[in-house]
Amino acid sequence: MTRPGAGLRFATVLWDGQATLVGVLDGAVVHLGAAARALRRGRKAAATGALPADMLGLIGGGPSGLRAAKAVLQAAARCLSDGTWRARPRDPVVRPLDRARTLSPIPRPPRNIFCVGRNYAEHAKERGADVPTVPVFFTKPPSAVVGHEAGVICWPATQNLDYEAELVVVIGRRGRDIPRARAYEYVFGYTIMNDITARDLQKKHTQWFKGKGLDTFAPLGPWIVPKSALPAPHALRIALRVNGEPRQEATTADMIFRIEELIEVLSAGMTLEPGDLIATGTPSGVGAGFVPPLWLAPGDVVEAEVEGIGILRNRIVAPGR
Amino acid sequence: MTRPGAGLRFATVLWDGQATLVGVLDGAVVHLGAAARALRRGRKAAATGALPADMLGLIGGGPSGLRAAKAVLQAAARCLSDGTWRARPRDPVVRPLDRARTLSPIPRPPRNIFCVGRNYAEHAKERGADVPTVPVFFTKPPSAVVGHEAGVICWPATQNLDYEAELVVVIGRRGRDIPRARAYEYVFGYTIMNDITARDLQKKHTQWFKGKGLDTFAPLGPWIVPKSALPAPHALRIALRVNGEPRQEATTADMIFRIEELIEVLSAGMTLEPGDLIATGTPSGVGAGFVPPLWLAPGDVVEAEVEGIGILRNRIVAPGR
Repeated sequence: MTRPGAGLRFATVLWDGQATLVGVLDGAVVHLGAAARALRRGRKAAATGALPADMLGLIGGGPSGLRAAKAVLQAAARCLSDGTWRARPRDPVVRPLDRARTLSPIPRPPRNIFCVGRNYAEHAKERGADVPTVPVFFTKPPSAVVGHEAGVICWPATQNLDYEAELVVVIGRRGRDIPRARAYEYVFGYTIMNDITARDLQKKHTQWFKGKGLDTFAPLGPWIVPKSALPAPHALRIALRVNGEPRQEATTADMIFRIEELIEVLSAGMTLEPGDLIATGTPSGVGAGFVPPLWLAPGDVVEAEVEGIGILRNRIVAPGR
Repeated sequence: MTRPGAGLRFATVLWDGQATLVGVLDGAVVHLGAAARALRRGRKAAATGALPADMLGLIGGGPSGLRAAKAVLQAAARCLSDGTWRARPRDPVVRPLDRARTLSPIPRPPRNIFCVGRNYAEHAKERGADVPTVPVFFTKPPSAVVGHEAGVICWPATQNLDYEAELVVVIGRRGRDIPRARAYEYVFGYTIMNDITARDLQKKHTQWFKGKGLDTFAPLGPWIVPKSALPAPHALRIALRVNGEPRQEATTADMIFRIEELIEVLSAGMTLEPGDLIATGTPSGVGAGFVPPLWLAPGDVVEAEVEGIGILRNRIVAPGR
């Protein structure tokens, strides 16, 4: 469980002040454009197509862009393992992962994140709710999105700040009325979201948007794993820790509505678009489920982990810091 | 009530195949860019700043862009009334309004539309709900947006298609934690939305997103009226007709939570952005409130009207047409 997702991963990092699409290797991030140029100069490039300019370009660009990005990343991995390249802090091509400032993989989603409520039976129970018979959808706005290691603000509007670890499906292809048998054709890959929730606002406003939609309430990342690198998304352990203490611990096998059914129901009469994000719900163990409840407070460090993807870590901070 | 909103109005129309920002005059639409060039050639231009490129540019561009657009439109109105210009179907500057294909004023909102539920007491009552003590917020996705005269699709997923006439606030300035006393500083103007709702899906999925979010379920328009042209947004008659038959008839004075309070509560801990749309809720008279209910069906023509803005008209159509 503690091993971060191996294999293919793409992130958006701040690289010399610019939000930049990078490939992620063990311990290193690779600037795909610079790596492609360096490989060409060294005559080490496999023939590749056009590289996507950013994460939305990678997601929506179809198989050829992904193939090009993959080829560059694999060549870069060889150059690193044979010692031709070395990750160094201000290197134009490869830099150490632990020095990279990771942004949300999609810095500004082109519309609200689709979210699913009560999609694990034990969580519905701890919230005092019936197990739903159809998926429950709500949204979080793009203004709530932050990246790995970013601060989550404990706004004065809430006294009941809570966490929810979730597997996120990244849509790669436009489609409507998608039957479940073809759902995975529309999936680009996966990431992690911490569905930060103000429980008091969620309850008071009855519809969940207000309690779920505040700025910084949608930490996303740390990166996106293409579906080819995560072939069994319903066999993953999902966990969340607060200050190292385990709170949520479950498997994505326990989802009530599986990814293919979520896509079928959500896309009925509604067009899904490349770059759309579907957060698939959280297992039991949220702070509101404890007696007395365990709310988040400034200084807390929350880690949401999904096997095969990685760890999304964020610190709770007071406003204005 | 039947007189369309006089004064300043901006629309987005299909002009030679391009989504184009235009000013709207009685019976005519004016291509702002082409009009500015024609006025300069005729030495009729007042000194103006840079014209916005599109509706989002106008909304987010601050006072100088709006001033420039206003000056061009007023000069164009003079040229039309003194006979220097005439609206003609393929004219490069001024065309007849009734021949223009009006799009949604913002063709693709940059994120979901913020919506308010149960904001008129009589409507909450007809839905069997308590009058809320705080605003109830949900969202509609950009993929649901269509313009004036566009078809609204009666998707097979629903048997209970309903309408809701709503006044929409267009946000013009970025802000968070906006106190109600300063709320109107953040308003750019107003338009109309028909909050099309699949009542069966709304109920079944408990959270309202699914029943409110299908493609074509957010007709918007026909244009945006800047706030200077609509100084009293809580003194407007609001009405809806189906095939000419009155169904909703109320005044925006009856909102439970007024615009300034909606902005204050929505922006608490959540940043509002230029181009954001806040649909302020619907009065009583929705189809679900009749006994037996009066659902919309293909062929029906629905007109949502707000005094001082205009009439937003859409036809219900079967899928695949």
